[in-house]
Amino acid sequence: MALEQIDGVSDSPFPFDIATAAPSKLRAIFRSGAYRGTTANMANGHTQGNLAVLPASHALDFARFCQRNPKPCPLVGMSDTGDPMMWTLGEDIDIRTDIPSYNIYRDGVFESSVSNISEFWEEDSVAFVLGCSFSFEEALMQARIPMRHMEINRTVPMYKTSIDLVPSGAFGGGMVVSMRPMSMEQAIQASAITARFPHTHGMPVHIGDPAAIGIKDLNTPDWGDPTEFRNGEVPVFWACGVTPQNAIQQAGLPLVLTHTPGSMLITDIPSAIG
Amino acid sequence: MALEQIDGVSDSPFPFDIATAAPSKLRAIFRSGAYRGTTANMANGHTQGNLAVLPASHALDFARFCQRNPKPCPLVGMSDTGDPMMWTLGEDIDIRTDIPSYNIYRDGVFESSVSNISEFWEEDSVAFVLGCSFSFEEALMQARIPMRHMEINRTVPMYKTSIDLVPSGAFGGGMVVSMRPMSMEQAIQASAITARFPHTHGMPVHIGDPAAIGIKDLNTPDWGDPTEFRNGEVPVFWACGVTPQNAIQQAGLPLVLTHTPGSMLITDIPSAIG
Repeated sequence: MALEQIDGVSDSPFPFDIATAAPSKLRAIFRSGAYRGTTANMANGHTQGNLAVLPASHALDFARFCQRNPKPCPLVGMSDTGDPMMWTLGEDIDIRTDIPSYNIYRDGVFESSVSNISEFWEEDSVAFVLGCSFSFEEALMQARIPMRHMEINRTVPMYKTSIDLVPSGAFGGGMVVSMRPMSMEQAIQASAITARFPHTHGMPVHIGDPAAIGIKDLNTPDWGDPTEFRNGEVPVFWACGVTPQNAIQQAGLPLVLTHTPGSMLITDIPSAIG
Repeated sequence: MALEQIDGVSDSPFPFDIATAAPSKLRAIFRSGAYRGTTANMANGHTQGNLAVLPASHALDFARFCQRNPKPCPLVGMSDTGDPMMWTLGEDIDIRTDIPSYNIYRDGVFESSVSNISEFWEEDSVAFVLGCSFSFEEALMQARIPMRHMEINRTVPMYKTSIDLVPSGAFGGGMVVSMRPMSMEQAIQASAITARFPHTHGMPVHIGDPAAIGIKDLNTPDWGDPTEFRNGEVPVFWACGVTPQNAIQQAGLPLVLTHTPGSMLITDIPSAIG
């Protein structure tokens, strides 16, 4: 799909309903470079994923890291070494081009965001796709559990915690969590619902006391925006996809490619499978 | 624990109730070389696992193979490269000695069974532990679902199927399944129960028609013994741990070490976690 065609139809790059669009239709637009924004609320019912591209020399350690820390690092797909086609996750997915925006990290330091990573893909590159919270948020909203950060149009608050990850090679550190306020009744219901989604962080890691997991002040998140509590609500904490991003950055590899936060890979996998 | 001490107590190498024994107590006996048999009905409530030791050169492909085929290959633990201590699965587990019996395969061909693999463990060895059916059978029996092969004192029947695995490198082929007869009502209940145990093969892959998954004759299993059907019972098929063993053998690597079928690693992980 050519950019000109899309621009010809409307100001939005999407001349169709993004919520019900097929993943392949959206990926074709991302591949063209016409859109570099968030994939939130797109292709509802399909698993979205975080990306990390590492050299084969560190891929086994990272696979082990994911296996050992399935809540923050739910591995939904791995490319074959050097092969950019993510054939286990859908039809014709080229991981170098089919995400709206990528981040380049050199020696653990952010360098730039780009619309495709073709020039950085090497013969020894391995792409890892990890589940993200978009799918479980969809399931929670269907159960009328509030997503306060969406209601007030902010980014979900994320916090560093004192929960140690199980290390593997250069990868380790602490777990990062996201937090959503809700009633205790809703928190219990949300625990049962998200238990069915092991590939998108699974059950909460904590309900209630931020100090119990090393969080000093809910009003000063390490990433995202502070949120609002209503009468009697408790904070509910889930393992967060920033955890592996953080671990990868701290490992300080010469070159790591990731998605730009919020701009995910949209797979063909139904999210209900979890 | 020395062999002489154990022999001094009774004819059994176990002077205690094996069903309720702590995993560490049993592993100490296996480490001593005093027992080379099955681990069935031992340390109830703890995850048991299949073993495969591969060289690092094939470890990333095998990790991918497990990620892509979670039902037959539910990965519960990976050692660090060259480190025989399975510290993510329990206290003081030395994978070279703590399983009752090991099989040695050279170029894909069975060579011998041994009571420890210390002399074969190399600096580039990686141990993979995969979940096995013992844990889910325990949960099914608690729900009064029949385990016919146990009632008639036989090995569960296992069959090659026409279900293709998702390949990775040298690893691929068809899925192997185990089969248990039960009423359709029990089959539905068993599906719901085993869905909670993704780390021990999860839900059935098929209920009812053997031909639908390429099985010609239930009376001639490829491994194990034929079993008995009672009035109105249907066959229920689960992905089986022989699948990865089979895939590894077919890959024909120079040297692969596995557990001897039935003689599993007993971990400290509660099986209820799945």
